[in-house]
Amino acid sequence: MNVSHRISELRSFMNIEGIEATIVSNPDHQYYVSGFKALLYSRPIIYVLDDQNSHLIVPALEEVHAKDEAKIDYIHVYFEHPERADEGISPYQHLKTLLKNYKTGSKIGVDMASTPAEQVVFIRELGLEIVDIGKKIMEMRYVKDEEELKLIEEAGYLANVAVRESLNACEVGITEIEIDARGNIAVFKETAKKYPNATLDLIVMSPSGVERTIMPHVFSNTRQVRTGDIIIHSRQVALNGYRAELERTIVIGELTKEQKKGFEAAKIAQQAAMDFIKPGVTAAEVDEVSRSILKKEGFADYAIHRVGHGIGISAHEEPSLRFDNNLILKENMVFTIEPGIFIPGVGGFRHSDTLILTKNGSRRITEYPSELEDLTYS
Amino acid sequence: MNVSHRISELRSFMNIEGIEATIVSNPDHQYYVSGFKALLYSRPIIYVLDDQNSHLIVPALEEVHAKDEAKIDYIHVYFEHPERADEGISPYQHLKTLLKNYKTGSKIGVDMASTPAEQVVFIRELGLEIVDIGKKIMEMRYVKDEEELKLIEEAGYLANVAVRESLNACEVGITEIEIDARGNIAVFKETAKKYPNATLDLIVMSPSGVERTIMPHVFSNTRQVRTGDIIIHSRQVALNGYRAELERTIVIGELTKEQKKGFEAAKIAQQAAMDFIKPGVTAAEVDEVSRSILKKEGFADYAIHRVGHGIGISAHEEPSLRFDNNLILKENMVFTIEPGIFIPGVGGFRHSDTLILTKNGSRRITEYPSELEDLTYS
Repeated sequence: MNVSHRISELRSFMNIEGIEATIVSNPDHQYYVSGFKALLYSRPIIYVLDDQNSHLIVPALEEVHAKDEAKIDYIHVYFEHPERADEGISPYQHLKTLLKNYKTGSKIGVDMASTPAEQVVFIRELGLEIVDIGKKIMEMRYVKDEEELKLIEEAGYLANVAVRESLNACEVGITEIEIDARGNIAVFKETAKKYPNATLDLIVMSPSGVERTIMPHVFSNTRQVRTGDIIIHSRQVALNGYRAELERTIVIGELTKEQKKGFEAAKIAQQAAMDFIKPGVTAAEVDEVSRSILKKEGFADYAIHRVGHGIGISAHEEPSLRFDNNLILKENMVFTIEPGIFIPGVGGFRHSDTLILTKNGSRRITEYPSELEDLTYS
Repeated sequence: MNVSHRISELRSFMNIEGIEATIVSNPDHQYYVSGFKALLYSRPIIYVLDDQNSHLIVPALEEVHAKDEAKIDYIHVYFEHPERADEGISPYQHLKTLLKNYKTGSKIGVDMASTPAEQVVFIRELGLEIVDIGKKIMEMRYVKDEEELKLIEEAGYLANVAVRESLNACEVGITEIEIDARGNIAVFKETAKKYPNATLDLIVMSPSGVERTIMPHVFSNTRQVRTGDIIIHSRQVALNGYRAELERTIVIGELTKEQKKGFEAAKIAQQAAMDFIKPGVTAAEVDEVSRSILKKEGFADYAIHRVGHGIGISAHEEPSLRFDNNLILKENMVFTIEPGIFIPGVGGFRHSDTLILTKNGSRRITEYPSELEDLTYS
């Protein structure tokens, strides 16, 4: 992953704002500026950028990993074995060393939405002034570069492979977690075939039945699928850290009349928003296109979330396609489109696809049929 | 999950310290005090406890889920659809309502290590004083209650089932992610059989080969296993939010003399620490028992992490079995024991097991043979 253009843009911004150094704590932001992603963050990892150098403060466990993968000038290691404890046992010792030469009152950029409060207290106690830089980094991530788009597109392909396999596995008696597992194996096999040394990160859920499908986000569990069930199978695949999402509502057996109405409304609302989205329209307008259809059908009160969200490194990222977001969309932004309705006593209905905005419209990178007859199993 | 004794203890502490309300942001802490765990936290969830009531602030997507699962007095919902926007579109609106009746200077408990800095700024701007309450909640989680121990023990059993299956799948040509997947399926099947409506959360990795096994934490990738490889298969299983860990280093074919020495040292160091740990000894002493063996064998410089850690709701939690932690251990604490050595050019070696401290010793809840002949595949 080439990050040099990102570093340049961040340094320009720091220069304009008079920020001497920027500290990045959010793991997804760190991946964006350094190409480095850890498996666990229970031992803190801190990224620091100044006008000359980039620094990564890591625990000893991540030293080799960081040296292999991070695009970084200096790696500072803290230890938890006594043999090297005198080189530092806390990330804050290294952070202090990096910050101590700045004059009192110097401006330090911090992502206030995801940096722990104790870290900000620590920086303030060094006599430094905090500037919130979270919005800037988030905005830099809005429009994807070529390398990012390629990974997202491949992730979309892998999501297609996996969802097809998961949905084929749906039958009476299978559990939600087994549905997920069937797709996982398919994506592992396909990825292994195509990409040596690639990493995958999956978010998958398959809530089933009336009571569980009305929860938009829930861990799959060991509930067994029954005749008459609705299942919302949702899947994100991250290939080397970049994600795509595909989701279909499927039916085991037959829907009631009321359920059929919900199914059709969610499908039509999604198609309308996918047809509408393009550079130049606002995020709120996309939400409104889908919402107005659901309203007409009498489902507005059950459409309890936005029509979609940005996707890339994070499972959900800005820009949000939400009723109060007047941001004008641009080419090479990437979104999920997924209007959902969740009706107590009836069930939940949602399809999700991932689209890349092109010059004059959009390109859908996930695919699976959306018609009821294609999504009925038994 | 019964949380009433936890709430009582937290309220007693608040009373002694003069804290009017405690705000909990860390998802694992939230699960501990409320029994509620979301799948994603990109929309903030905030828990508030005062001397009368407990409150959970959730996005609309989590309303049904929270009502089903949270042990809570009041649920406050914020919305992202215009039909209900006037009831609040941000968690901070509800937080303000809950905090506005406290007098200027009132003490509010906050977990400073995991609460976002912007949230603390928000609370301070209401004229309230912050008290760090993170250590208290962490300490409450040290000793597990009966319900927690039962789940952890079951998670240990499921880890055994999964590791056995993953290790049986190891052979030349299989990829790391496929090794993981084989164990996943086994745990899904077994869980479905035994526990209706249970959730699972897995952390699994199988770094292979000399270069990847020296990284203690790394995502499994699509590398194909070769003759002569070492593989460290590590697996955590969380059953309904509570975890156990089991890990074995296995060999495809034959080890070099140097590798054999590393393998044996890691095995003996683990056994010594498992034999030693019991209530009354300190965390540092457990680390030292294992470390002194690795030192004698000439591996101290490669033993770059602590001998183990607490485990329960979090993948890693306090108490840390670390050289500088003089905490005296108690009955019903739960630990992993996993001394590891990571030798550049030679490979990594680590076994991990999970133990519950009993009155006079410990009970190991994970099991798989640790001898080289039992761990050699081809």
